[in-house]
Amino acid sequence: MAVHVGLHDDNFYTRRCVELARMAIGCTSPNPMVGYVIVKDGKIVGEGFNPKAGQPHAEVFALRDARDLAENATAYVSLERKGVVGIIDPNPIVASKGVDRLRAAGIVVTAGVEEALCKKLNEAYTHQMLTGKTLLALRYSISLNGQVSDHLGEGAIDSGGYYSKLPQEYDAVILSSTYLHDKPSLPTSQEPSAKQPLRIAIARSSNATLEVPGLTTGSEVESKASLVGVETVISDQITVNAILDYCTRPGLCSVLLDYTGNTDDLEELVKESFEQNMLQKIAVEILPLWCGRDDRNARFPLNTEEVSKMKSLQPKIYNQSTILEGHL
Amino acid sequence: MAVHVGLHDDNFYTRRCVELARMAIGCTSPNPMVGYVIVKDGKIVGEGFNPKAGQPHAEVFALRDARDLAENATAYVSLERKGVVGIIDPNPIVASKGVDRLRAAGIVVTAGVEEALCKKLNEAYTHQMLTGKTLLALRYSISLNGQVSDHLGEGAIDSGGYYSKLPQEYDAVILSSTYLHDKPSLPTSQEPSAKQPLRIAIARSSNATLEVPGLTTGSEVESKASLVGVETVISDQITVNAILDYCTRPGLCSVLLDYTGNTDDLEELVKESFEQNMLQKIAVEILPLWCGRDDRNARFPLNTEEVSKMKSLQPKIYNQSTILEGHL
Repeated sequence: MAVHVGLHDDNFYTRRCVELARMAIGCTSPNPMVGYVIVKDGKIVGEGFNPKAGQPHAEVFALRDARDLAENATAYVSLERKGVVGIIDPNPIVASKGVDRLRAAGIVVTAGVEEALCKKLNEAYTHQMLTGKTLLALRYSISLNGQVSDHLGEGAIDSGGYYSKLPQEYDAVILSSTYLHDKPSLPTSQEPSAKQPLRIAIARSSNATLEVPGLTTGSEVESKASLVGVETVISDQITVNAILDYCTRPGLCSVLLDYTGNTDDLEELVKESFEQNMLQKIAVEILPLWCGRDDRNARFPLNTEEVSKMKSLQPKIYNQSTILEGHL
Repeated sequence: MAVHVGLHDDNFYTRRCVELARMAIGCTSPNPMVGYVIVKDGKIVGEGFNPKAGQPHAEVFALRDARDLAENATAYVSLERKGVVGIIDPNPIVASKGVDRLRAAGIVVTAGVEEALCKKLNEAYTHQMLTGKTLLALRYSISLNGQVSDHLGEGAIDSGGYYSKLPQEYDAVILSSTYLHDKPSLPTSQEPSAKQPLRIAIARSSNATLEVPGLTTGSEVESKASLVGVETVISDQITVNAILDYCTRPGLCSVLLDYTGNTDDLEELVKESFEQNMLQKIAVEILPLWCGRDDRNARFPLNTEEVSKMKSLQPKIYNQSTILEGHL
């Protein structure tokens, strides 16, 4: 019987690792997403990924899957473990040690295959390991005539829509308290078995009411809040720095600032994150709309002469909206 | 010898007609672009397109190309001529008469193949035939934070760039006079053998100087202008209506309002064209930039409560910019 030898190369198998890794999107934090593929005679004989923190690693699942076919096979992994390596783990406890150990044992190791793709897969994890900081991203929608808008594109909040998928990629979401007031429920990912991010609701003015679903408003809000799992933090200064500091405590790798609702709540946070270079990522939805001017200053708060160029801008189309994601 | 029968269908050949027709983009106005394909035994044996007004039609070139292979072959055409027809010609002199004549002669005619594509090919021509009016489009660039900007994306003005290709699709372009003042030359398409559109420069304020390259400024501007082929039109009221009226005289099917330079010159025209529903099309460039606020009100002038939804929005990527074209 002839052995079928695939025409695929290291890049192909590494890309497959990334695909597998992403099956656990939103579930592995603070650990990275990792995918593992075992290849023998050009055929994939085993696959696995990190399902969530505390469970066995990707390679365990892949080896179980491959059974005795794993012998003398080649292993591919999106983050430093053993075999062909996408990127070196930026975690100083791990960095290059896996690769070094394999090399010392006389095993040929190829590192840096599909490096950019593997880095993007775990960008929050990589950012935190390299800088010690939580990754901060900003999301907003604008109309074609440049008005910041509370509209979302058709189907955006439904399962598969970009606004349903986005919260899965972040450990926490910062919201205006009016968002909660205006909507029947908290913004929730509709993806199957989605892990919902921590919601951080900002109420800036002194008479702001924090109408969290399931909570009655009023002076007793704080005591009642704790009963339904809401932590109330009262602060003289609501700053991005303070919020990110708070986030490091529960070990959150990534935070999304969702610029919608009452912009008074969020405007200062946007300014601060720009001025202090705290923002790593932007996701803009360009709506297929021309919006009329309204009373509030629905333009982006940015009092700077500077022009910043976005890097690695990735446009995606959802229905009639265009979603642009990029790095600063 | 076996005859090779292609697997292609009517749609395939009609799409090829549209491809051929577009080879004469910017050259056929006020006539439509037309492509013609002759197919025999599943093979294309002849191709042709309308090169420009006054020259033979597409079918003449296609028949020449096919020579004696044209006998008993099937013909495909993007606009009503004979054979498989993309769309019925909206010109009342032609409308359905070609199709009717063929049917009367016992020839089977299929009309409406790839209708949307064929309509889009000659949208200015179609618009003028159906409404008697010149098609009006608006172009502008905005930054990711919603600022209207005079920036153009990298490579946009080079051959193949979107800003070089765009003028080819319009018979005339409306510009701010400061555009001419600031730039070393008029905006010019860099495409090979491009037909340049008529440039209509707006100078609104009483002390505006119209610095056309090759012209000296000053009081003698009008007399000197005529020497270099510039027509000076002095008007109490600069309105879109007046400009489009002027354009019907030289038989221009389509006009592009290029919103750049001194917005004082163009702001009223944009408002008017929205308020009077004169605008058919918008082309927006989303720059990969965050722009600082500047002194002029770099937001889109639109004092309306209304939200208009764009139809058939087509996003294209040029380098890092996203170009969104759509209809109102």
